[in-house]
Amino acid sequence: MPVKAVFFDIDNTLYDSATLSKMARRNSVLAMIDSGLDQPMETVLGDLDQIIEKHGSNYRWHYDELLKLYGMCDAKIIASGVVAYEHTKNAYLKPLAGVVPTLIELKKYYLIGAISNGLTLKQWEKLVGLRLHHFFDSVVTSEGCGCEKPASEIFLAALTDLDVKPGDAVMVGDKYDVDIKGAQNVGMHALWLRKEAPKNSNEINRFSDLIKVLKGLE
Amino acid sequence: MPVKAVFFDIDNTLYDSATLSKMARRNSVLAMIDSGLDQPMETVLGDLDQIIEKHGSNYRWHYDELLKLYGMCDAKIIASGVVAYEHTKNAYLKPLAGVVPTLIELKKYYLIGAISNGLTLKQWEKLVGLRLHHFFDSVVTSEGCGCEKPASEIFLAALTDLDVKPGDAVMVGDKYDVDIKGAQNVGMHALWLRKEAPKNSNEINRFSDLIKVLKGLE
Repeated sequence: MPVKAVFFDIDNTLYDSATLSKMARRNSVLAMIDSGLDQPMETVLGDLDQIIEKHGSNYRWHYDELLKLYGMCDAKIIASGVVAYEHTKNAYLKPLAGVVPTLIELKKYYLIGAISNGLTLKQWEKLVGLRLHHFFDSVVTSEGCGCEKPASEIFLAALTDLDVKPGDAVMVGDKYDVDIKGAQNVGMHALWLRKEAPKNSNEINRFSDLIKVLKGLE
Repeated sequence: MPVKAVFFDIDNTLYDSATLSKMARRNSVLAMIDSGLDQPMETVLGDLDQIIEKHGSNYRWHYDELLKLYGMCDAKIIASGVVAYEHTKNAYLKPLAGVVPTLIELKKYYLIGAISNGLTLKQWEKLVGLRLHHFFDSVVTSEGCGCEKPASEIFLAALTDLDVKPGDAVMVGDKYDVDIKGAQNVGMHALWLRKEAPKNSNEINRFSDLIKVLKGLE
């Protein structure tokens, strides 16, 4: 039973989106305070987290909502937050260690896909920013599919896109309930990329262990 | 008759927006071709110029419209164009030579304002990206004012914002009909920043000549 395709989650699997978000929010708040927002940093960070929680990360008016909380409307402060967020994002949007050499090696033997909850253009922008876009034969997003992981439909749509059977495909992701269980539910192999030391044969904590583990599956 | 305030145009006055746009469009087209857009570069550049001409530079769907011309709809190609444009923009968004030391010197004696045709948030984002935002006591945009330069209203709104009489203020810009005549129509002084050698006393071609010329006005 040869593996034919390897599918990846994007956020926190190909790059460290948790650190990116944390540092980008922190720097955007520092920049807004520098531009005249007279509030304690921890207060603003907490309020911003709540607004992003409420409206989702792709909402366009986070900073407008934030300033409204303080009875303000100031384009200089909003622009300072937006620019600091973008600059920090660009600084942290780098592939995790091992991603590039591993994809180069995997690409010799397997089709490569992404299965991601998010907006199609935004997820592609991340892959382009990471300079990983040329590796991917398929990118299926929840926006394009109309349903989110762990729903079976999104995994099946990705398999169909590359014309691969579930048992011939592997899903790699960081979220157990979303990526791993979702893939296993449709009969795919799944590898859990986690920060802790791996306990089971379908867990890895270094991206570069992928090649070794994939050989074991065959 | 002491000068109290100096107002600046933003695009092509504080930074070289013409080169920025040209190089950002060029790199976005190269990136789209790299991602699979199978069209000659000159064709795509010409088509993109026409779309931007038609919809304005703040339209959000330039690349979608562009691909439609070729019967395509491909998020990978659009994302490649968007990311290349943003990266190139950040590389070219630098103050023109002389801007920073001149503003530091001017700030000792004058209020500093901007009068700009454009969207308020976008123009502030440019000032923040240029790291010039802290110099400005006032930024008046056509979006905020409801009319564009050379209409007198936008110049009068900027003067009101800093509580300065027309005769005590100077406008600096690169467009004769828009910045210079517009300012003169309301009784402001005006200095024309142009690439060619200056012919008249109210023309400069180096930003740093501003201080010398302003002293002459007093």
